[in-house]
Amino acid sequence: MAFKVIKENILRANDDVAQSIRKRLDAQGTLMINIISSPGAGKTAFLERTGPLLREEGIAFVVLTGDCFTSRDAERMDALGLPVVQINTGNACHIDAQLIDSAMKGIDLAGTDLIVVENVGNLVCPAEFDLGEDMKIAFLSTAEGHDKPSKYPLLIEEGKLAIINKTDLLPYLDFDAQYCRESIKKVNPGIKILEISCRTGDGIDGFIDWIKDEIKIKKEKNA
Amino acid sequence: MAFKVIKENILRANDDVAQSIRKRLDAQGTLMINIISSPGAGKTAFLERTGPLLREEGIAFVVLTGDCFTSRDAERMDALGLPVVQINTGNACHIDAQLIDSAMKGIDLAGTDLIVVENVGNLVCPAEFDLGEDMKIAFLSTAEGHDKPSKYPLLIEEGKLAIINKTDLLPYLDFDAQYCRESIKKVNPGIKILEISCRTGDGIDGFIDWIKDEIKIKKEKNA
Repeated sequence: MAFKVIKENILRANDDVAQSIRKRLDAQGTLMINIISSPGAGKTAFLERTGPLLREEGIAFVVLTGDCFTSRDAERMDALGLPVVQINTGNACHIDAQLIDSAMKGIDLAGTDLIVVENVGNLVCPAEFDLGEDMKIAFLSTAEGHDKPSKYPLLIEEGKLAIINKTDLLPYLDFDAQYCRESIKKVNPGIKILEISCRTGDGIDGFIDWIKDEIKIKKEKNA
Repeated sequence: MAFKVIKENILRANDDVAQSIRKRLDAQGTLMINIISSPGAGKTAFLERTGPLLREEGIAFVVLTGDCFTSRDAERMDALGLPVVQINTGNACHIDAQLIDSAMKGIDLAGTDLIVVENVGNLVCPAEFDLGEDMKIAFLSTAEGHDKPSKYPLLIEEGKLAIINKTDLLPYLDFDAQYCRESIKKVNPGIKILEISCRTGDGIDGFIDWIKDEIKIKKEKNA
């Protein structure tokens, strides 16, 4: 019981900061997405694939990339000239709003269309924390198996988009794509699903089209 | 700072229960292993593969399987007639010693050689919690990429054995097995590494031989 109260207090303090972030984003019409996945689902590969395409489209974006200890993901994006801010959480298993608040200090929101948060690899804890983002994206991988949406429902419930990565591995896995899609829709009927392969590039265009629309909607809403 | 103190208190309360569990296990010479992985690395498939073999070897074992909400993993093992106790953690991202203590109430330790804890799918949080186990096993998958040992070092540090599953997918992945092995040894030079495929059965015998030795050592030590 004591632990429950402590957790509620931690989440409340987090939510106050998240609200302040949301107000600042809304004031400038900047879209923030929060990508959450298991370790190794391919979030960084996804940003390596989509980053250059977003740039070609003239979208001004920054990636805030979370990791417990290393800066490997940030280095991978930096190598491609993608604008990235590293967030190290130590042994903490999620990014909280305070960390986002600090990471945003150097960012000119007026000149930024999109902020992408690459969360720590973890399907459980990050789903509980509001970062002030416009939406959470549940990022799954075929290699994890088709039962993950029902096993980790909170993220699916909270998500606006579910991405299923590594479709290139489908011939070598016992992955039931239809079952996976149905499980996702069962938890959250309104969620959009995209199936992609960061290795081959399949389906990436669908994401670019979707995010361009979302950026436009956000700008119009806050004009 | 306050959060750090709270966390220390939570871990201290956990450790008291863990010590009590460890004493009971030692008194009966029962080995307890704690398997920790990302979601979808293949822990349940591993138990489906190894469970029947352990039974053939005459090893008396029980699986304590953790999951946030569902009982899917327990059902999969139950379908094979493997003795299993379900632990649901709700939104909690790890199993703590109190949950193990409750789950052990129905188990006759004197008649049990081995308790296998299948932790919640999460590479970060479960590594911090002592469950009274004899050893943690870091369970990785090739599909997650070779950089996970350096990105999630605590589990490798705490582990006595690292298992790399899904070797059957190697031809279809950019997975550098040597790099992965070296990263593991860099964090923990004393850890043993086994490479397996739960799909094809490759390498499973190596685990059975290893666990038989560990059970024997534990029994002799506490005879």
